[in-house]
Amino acid sequence: MTSERLARQIAFVVEADKLKTIVRRTPLTDNSRHENSAEHSWHLAVAAMALYEYAPKGTNLLRVLELVTVHDLVEIDAGDTFAYDAQAGIGKVDRERVAAERLFGLLPPGEAERTRALWEEFEAAESPEARFANALDRLQALLQNMKAGGGSWVAHAVTRSQVLKRMEPIRTAMPDVWPFVLEVIQNACDGGYIRE
Amino acid sequence: MTSERLARQIAFVVEADKLKTIVRRTPLTDNSRHENSAEHSWHLAVAAMALYEYAPKGTNLLRVLELVTVHDLVEIDAGDTFAYDAQAGIGKVDRERVAAERLFGLLPPGEAERTRALWEEFEAAESPEARFANALDRLQALLQNMKAGGGSWVAHAVTRSQVLKRMEPIRTAMPDVWPFVLEVIQNACDGGYIRE
Repeated sequence: MTSERLARQIAFVVEADKLKTIVRRTPLTDNSRHENSAEHSWHLAVAAMALYEYAPKGTNLLRVLELVTVHDLVEIDAGDTFAYDAQAGIGKVDRERVAAERLFGLLPPGEAERTRALWEEFEAAESPEARFANALDRLQALLQNMKAGGGSWVAHAVTRSQVLKRMEPIRTAMPDVWPFVLEVIQNACDGGYIRE
Repeated sequence: MTSERLARQIAFVVEADKLKTIVRRTPLTDNSRHENSAEHSWHLAVAAMALYEYAPKGTNLLRVLELVTVHDLVEIDAGDTFAYDAQAGIGKVDRERVAAERLFGLLPPGEAERTRALWEEFEAAESPEARFANALDRLQALLQNMKAGGGSWVAHAVTRSQVLKRMEPIRTAMPDVWPFVLEVIQNACDGGYIRE
């Protein structure tokens, strides 16, 4: 007999599978298709491990890995909102709050609140861990677009000032990586992938 | 100017993207397509967090998340080897060792060895963290096949004794979850998804 508690935990794990069907605007580096939010979340974990030394002082890596693992789960109900689309952003907060209620609520009491708090921490982007996780989220999209020959920058005619604003969390959370980001943006402008 | 060190770390993160193109035999729960090894690795992180209380005593969750994040990276060069195909397993160890040499070798010295050691720890399946991670790897495939109406069990005419053997790491690392696994296997046999 499976306990009620284990049954709820398994239901949550099974439900999480749906994040693999949520497609983002960012392409794979080989430009063969758009990436989904599940594999994107995994890629942030890889980046967190590889680039941990650039995180804000005192950053707890366990917390970062937990944050990136759950940060997009609400998209299962609320969908992915394209970063450069102000119109699509309307109502995003409410949609995601309702989604969080249902999705994290699949877990047993206690575990539900603890997991939901991780998502809220990522969204608030205030703790060192959440600032680092948000910076990685921006950096990963930059790398994908760079390698795919422009990706969502070209598809949506994004400008340099939009990209600079979007990458801002990297400047503050990972200052040592910022010169690299500026280099990539300059090259993308020179190559015509980002508009001046 | 980007330092040689950062350039190598970025190269590793970019290379990791290719794991999103490595297709496994296991379907998504909605049976719409097979899953890839990147999103599968993310799913193990979700499962590790949700089911952590069933891990062996003393299991360090950070270590588990690190293990599941890197455990399939070598497949970028070596490909995914189907669990129930003994023929395909020949040469797997050598193929993966060469792949590990190249992939983890993209990282700066020190970080390369540390990250490679995580992969070796997962493969050895001896530490509490690696035993838990391996058990989750088996459990996740079980859940996907169960929900997708048989998945790779049906496609490859897998038998009950094969599945029981494959799930053995769950029995030893997560004994409290074992009755649930037996229940799923029994239901799958009754439903004709697993052969007697």
